This record gives sequence, structure tokens and C-alpha cells, in this order.
Amino acid sequence: MDNFNFYNPVRVLFGEATIPQIGRELKNAGIKKVLLLAGGGSIKSNGVYDTAIKSLRRAGIEWVELWGVRPNPTLEHALKGIEICRSNGLESILAIGGGSVIDEAKSIAAGFYLDDLWEAFEGNEKINNALPLYTILTISATCSEMNMFAVLSNEEQKKKWAIRSEYIFPKISIIDPGVQMSLPWRQTLNGGIDAISHTMEFYFLGTNQEISISIDEAIINTLIKSIDMLQNDEKNYNARANLAWSSALALNGVSGASMRGGDWAVHNIEHSISVLYPEVAHAEGLSVIYPAWILYMQENNKSQFERWAKNIWGADSVEKGVEMLKNKYKSWGAPVSLRELHIAKEVIPDLATNAMIRGEFGILKKLNYNDVINILELAF
Amino acid sequence: MDNFNFYNPVRVLFGEATIPQIGRELKNAGIKKVLLLAGGGSIKSNGVYDTAIKSLRRAGIEWVELWGVRPNPTLEHALKGIEICRSNGLESILAIGGGSVIDEAKSIAAGFYLDDLWEAFEGNEKINNALPLYTILTISATCSEMNMFAVLSNEEQKKKWAIRSEYIFPKISIIDPGVQMSLPWRQTLNGGIDAISHTMEFYFLGTNQEISISIDEAIINTLIKSIDMLQNDEKNYNARANLAWSSALALNGVSGASMRGGDWAVHNIEHSISVLYPEVAHAEGLSVIYPAWILYMQENNKSQFERWAKNIWGADSVEKGVEMLKNKYKSWGAPVSLRELHIAKEVIPDLATNAMIRGEFGILKKLNYNDVINILELAF
Repeated sequence: MDNFNFYNPVRVLFGEATIPQIGRELKNAGIKKVLLLAGGGSIKSNGVYDTAIKSLRRAGIEWVELWGVRPNPTLEHALKGIEICRSNGLESILAIGGGSVIDEAKSIAAGFYLDDLWEAFEGNEKINNALPLYTILTISATCSEMNMFAVLSNEEQKKKWAIRSEYIFPKISIIDPGVQMSLPWRQTLNGGIDAISHTMEFYFLGTNQEISISIDEAIINTLIKSIDMLQNDEKNYNARANLAWSSALALNGVSGASMRGGDWAVHNIEHSISVLYPEVAHAEGLSVIYPAWILYMQENNKSQFERWAKNIWGADSVEKGVEMLKNKYKSWGAPVSLRELHIAKEVIPDLATNAMIRGEFGILKKLNYNDVINILELAF
Repeated sequence: MDNFNFYNPVRVLFGEATIPQIGRELKNAGIKKVLLLAGGGSIKSNGVYDTAIKSLRRAGIEWVELWGVRPNPTLEHALKGIEICRSNGLESILAIGGGSVIDEAKSIAAGFYLDDLWEAFEGNEKINNALPLYTILTISATCSEMNMFAVLSNEEQKKKWAIRSEYIFPKISIIDPGVQMSLPWRQTLNGGIDAISHTMEFYFLGTNQEISISIDEAIINTLIKSIDMLQNDEKNYNARANLAWSSALALNGVSGASMRGGDWAVHNIEHSISVLYPEVAHAEGLSVIYPAWILYMQENNKSQFERWAKNIWGADSVEKGVEMLKNKYKSWGAPVSLRELHIAKEVIPDLATNAMIRGEFGILKKLNYNDVINILELAF
């Protein structure tokens, strides 16, 4: 069992009617003025915005609003947030939304204390402080609500990079699964597949960490059951709640304990798709690439892939397991081939070239250009 | 799924050769003088003490030693620790040992800022601060290394009570499973049964929290597998490591998410045994009471007890599951009846009376005197 460090100081308030606690929590922390960061108007239509500002008002918290965070949050918009915080003397950020809003909020929180935020993404400036961040989650997927990562796009330079710093852990994240009941099926599904994929990035590195392996199986199986239930009944609170907490555990450190940081090759390959085809959702790319990657990689950790087939799918071979994974994804309406994403076979070399930009990648096996070509062809 | 709060800011450094990091961590935190708290001499014979003080010395950390923490740590000894911290200007506590040493260290850490430490245990004085606590764990069992509870005995008043405060979470806990290889089988076993019992206190309240239920199954199954392996090979590092991390997850908040705080009736009944029969180890009492409690309680959450029988033991009835639990405990050399603890049937009413001291208890069902009598008779 490999050494690991575990640290996650995020306080989670989980459950129904937790959003009205936000004002008091900010007040208890001595915060008087916050930036309220949000995406589109969905938090107005589902009532989350009203509940939150009512709580702020009651606690005597002042706020300035910044709307318009995009699904792939941009540097430009984050810089605007930093400027607002500085010019209004804001002491904290309250992010209301999903992973994109929280990622941008983390960037603003860190950028507040930096000379040049993007230099931190380039690895040239070190994050040594951040504004305290509070979040109200409206869609479970990325676990940004409970980790120290943030992804931002620099549109000018066509770069989509990440920062990682303990300073950007949220102080408190409020997760009320009830507010996710009004999400369109497609968003629920993409969030669920994202969380399954996160867990699998760790899981397939499994060897002798029985506890992490079996917890990862618990997470994956619960996610599958919850998505199944929500397909039939989008208002099922317990399914929403199980999906929400499983998604958090999928990338908050628990699923990855002693798992060498995860493999992340599938995420890297997917990234090359969504850069060239921005209309493809991240989760759609993942649901296409994962089955192919599993088939291609199985000999590199055979017993673990066989265990996956057996304990997740009740299947007696990896091929059978992959078949069942694809059938499950299809039954949910998720794509399982590049063809379904309307990506032509001729584009595969471009995708592979793009994936190799930072060199070989993957932990279970370092993937080179030919490996990626093979995986993409399997995914076709 | 019930609401819950999750918060656990303990930083865990897990794995081989992690103990030498202690000096640097203290130094990075700006700490110059610590109380080194320990129990008996086992940390001298297994090399942990030498490794730790070498690290302190290298980092320029001064320390004062207090030895002699007992298996049931006492108020008297903790007060001595507080006095040493105050008179030497110590800024932090380094606990080297198991749950007892860490519990006493937490008491000293909080007591440093209190007028009367015991008044905090009585609930009459509030804990508002504590010295920063660092731990080096030498036996996995109680999860004191990763939670905010501490139990202390007031011998004069014959009370054994607990405090709970976020201030007493350790800052950093170092868990090197390698140092547990030299533990006697009995201690390894008791630690494992303690952790299984903690997880079951949450598990049997399970209804619709699929994620926590299945994670608890992962923890229990991993603990059983690890103990089995260690019975055959006490030097098996991976078994030690899986046992160690599972024990931490058993009571650090993960196993109990949305589990209404746990039932704790079995612990309460056990407590009455170890108060009247101090020679009975806590884990021995638990291994005797748990099978009886399960048999007695099964109708109160039938499907969950049946799930336990199936998913832990592969059994098709609760009775069969209990049978297999008892056989497993017996095969490890743990007692499964009061008789084996040399407790006479005539004493049962005394035990029950003692258990009822603070009134009815339990969450799944409030147990009264007759219930406890019935459970104890089943355990006989």
C-alpha cells in the first residue's frame, strides 16, 4: 500500500433547508461584505438565489453580484471578479452554482492576492493566500465544492489549465440535494458520469489498497443505482442525495487514498476532444473514451480490471464488463462512440496529436501517440 | 436521507517512514517547545521514540517528556500534563501512542485554557481553545487520531466521561502502519474489533443512505480480511495498512455520514461491563454484546440486518449471519459470551442497572432495563 497524505478541511452542510444557514455562517466568521458569484439565471428560477440573499440580508451581510460565469469559466471573467472584490473591499466570495462557478470563485479568491492570476496557472506565481470561499452547490459532478482544484480557460491563448492549492479549499460548502430536482436529465446524467469517471481514474490503479478499492466500488455502484433511479423519477430526493454525496467522495481524497494520484489518461484524451469540439460536453467525451481505454489497458492490471467487471457488473470477463458499461451508458442516453459525437475517423490523428501536447501521460502505463491512436480507434 | 454536517480538518501523513517528518511539521507551524506525551515503554522498544526525537532534534524543537499514560487515561495524569505545559511555556503537544495517549493529549490541550478541566467533561465549562495537537499513532483502533472526541477517567469520582470539541482535532496525525507490526496479536485483534464495532454502530441505522451503507460494508469487510491476514502473518504490511486506514475511516465522519450519529447502545452496555470488571478489555465486551444485540434488535430494521447478513457474511438470514460473526470472532480468539469473561449469570441485573444510570439509550430503539436484561441474557 503506497504512502499518501490526506487533508480536506472543507466543512459540508448537507441536506434539506441548509441554504438559509449561509448568512449566519458568514457572520460567525466575521465577514461583512461578499462577492456573490453566479452563472446563468437558473438559481433565480429554482429559488436558490432568493433563499440565499434572504439569509444574507437577515445576517446583515452586504454583497455585490457578478453574474455570467460560463460552463468553461474564463480568465477574463475571473479578472473582472478580482477587480470587483478589490474596488469594493469585499472580504469573501460566495459561489452559487456548479463546478464552473466554484472553479472561477477559487480563481478569484487566489487571484485577489496575486500580481497576475494567469501566472499561477502557468506555474510561475505561487499561491500563498486566498479570500475565504463559501459555496452553495446546485449540481453535483466535479466535487469542486470539496477539493482544492480549479480549472480556468485563457481564451486568448487557447489554454485550459488548472491550479491546485490548499488555500482554495472552500471554508464551507452547502449541499442541498433538493435544489437539484429541477435539473434537466442531461445535466444530472453528465454530472453522474463525471463522478463515475473520477472514481475510475483512481480505481484501476488498485492493487493492495483493499479499503480504497472497495470504497471506490461502493461509490461507483451507488452512482449507477442513483442515476438509474433518477432516470425514472427526477424528484427522488434520496437518489439526489446519494448522487450528491457520492460525487463529493469521488474527488475529495477519500476515493484516491493510496491510489498514486489517479491515472487521468482518459481525462487527458477527452480534453483533446472538447478542445477541438467545444459542443461536446466533458462527460460525453468521457463516456466515449472510457470503455475503449479499459479494453486497451486491461492487460496492465488484469486482476483489477477483472475485479471491476465482477464487482460492478457481475461479469466474468473484462470484455463483458465493458459491454455492460456501454449498455448502461446507452440506456441513459449517453454516447459510447466517437461516431455518435459526429467526429469523423479522419480526425483521430488530430485528436491524438492534440492529446500529446504535453508529452506522454498516464500512470498505469505511459501512453504514447500510437497508444492514443489505438484507443481512439477503439472508441470510434 | 437525513441531513448531516461533515467536518474533519486533520492532516494525515500515512505510510512508511513518515515519522521523521514530525520535526519539520512542527517547525513549519512555528512551534518551538512541545510536551511529548507517551504511555509505557513500547515506543522505546519499537524504535518510534528514537525516530521521533531525532526528528525533533534535527528541526530544533525542544521538548519535555511525560510518560505513564494508562490504558484508561486519568484526570490526575492529565492535570499533571497541563501543569507541565504551563510551567514550561510549552506551545503544543506531541502524543506518541494509541487512543489512550491521544485522548489524554486532547484533554491536556483543551485543559490548558480551562479553569477546571473536569468541568468541561461535566458539561459545565465550554472548550473555546486548545493547544495544537500532533500525534504519532502506534495502534489503530479508536480513531482518536482523526476525530474530536476524548475519554478520560475521574478515578476519585468513579466517572469515565467524554468531551467533544472541534478544537481538539489533531492538526497532524502520522500513521505509519509498519510500527504496528510488533504489536501482540491480542492488541491487534482488539483494535480491529473496536473498529468493526464503531462501523456497525452507524451501519445498523442504515435505511436510504446507500452510499454510507455500502462504504460501511467496505470498511467492515476490509477489517475482517485484514485481521484474518494478520492472524496468519503479523508482519503483513498491506494488511496493517488496510487495517489502519479502515480504522480511521470507521470513526472520522465518513462511516457515519447521514447515520443519525450512530446508535451506541452496544457501547453503552459494554461500558457497564468494563466499569464493574476492569480486567475486561473494551473490545472483549463489544465482541460479547454485539451478536446478542443484533439478534435482539433485528426486527427494528429487518431489511438492514438482512443486508448485513448477506453482504458481510453471504448468509441468508440474520441468525446465520450472527452465527458466522461469532464463529469468526471465536476463530480469532475473541470471547462471544459473558461466560467466557467469567461473568456469572447472577450479575446480569447489576450490569443492566449500571447501564441504565443515565436513562434509556439507543437510537434504533430506546432500550429500557428489560431490553438490556434480555440482551445480556442472550449474551450469556
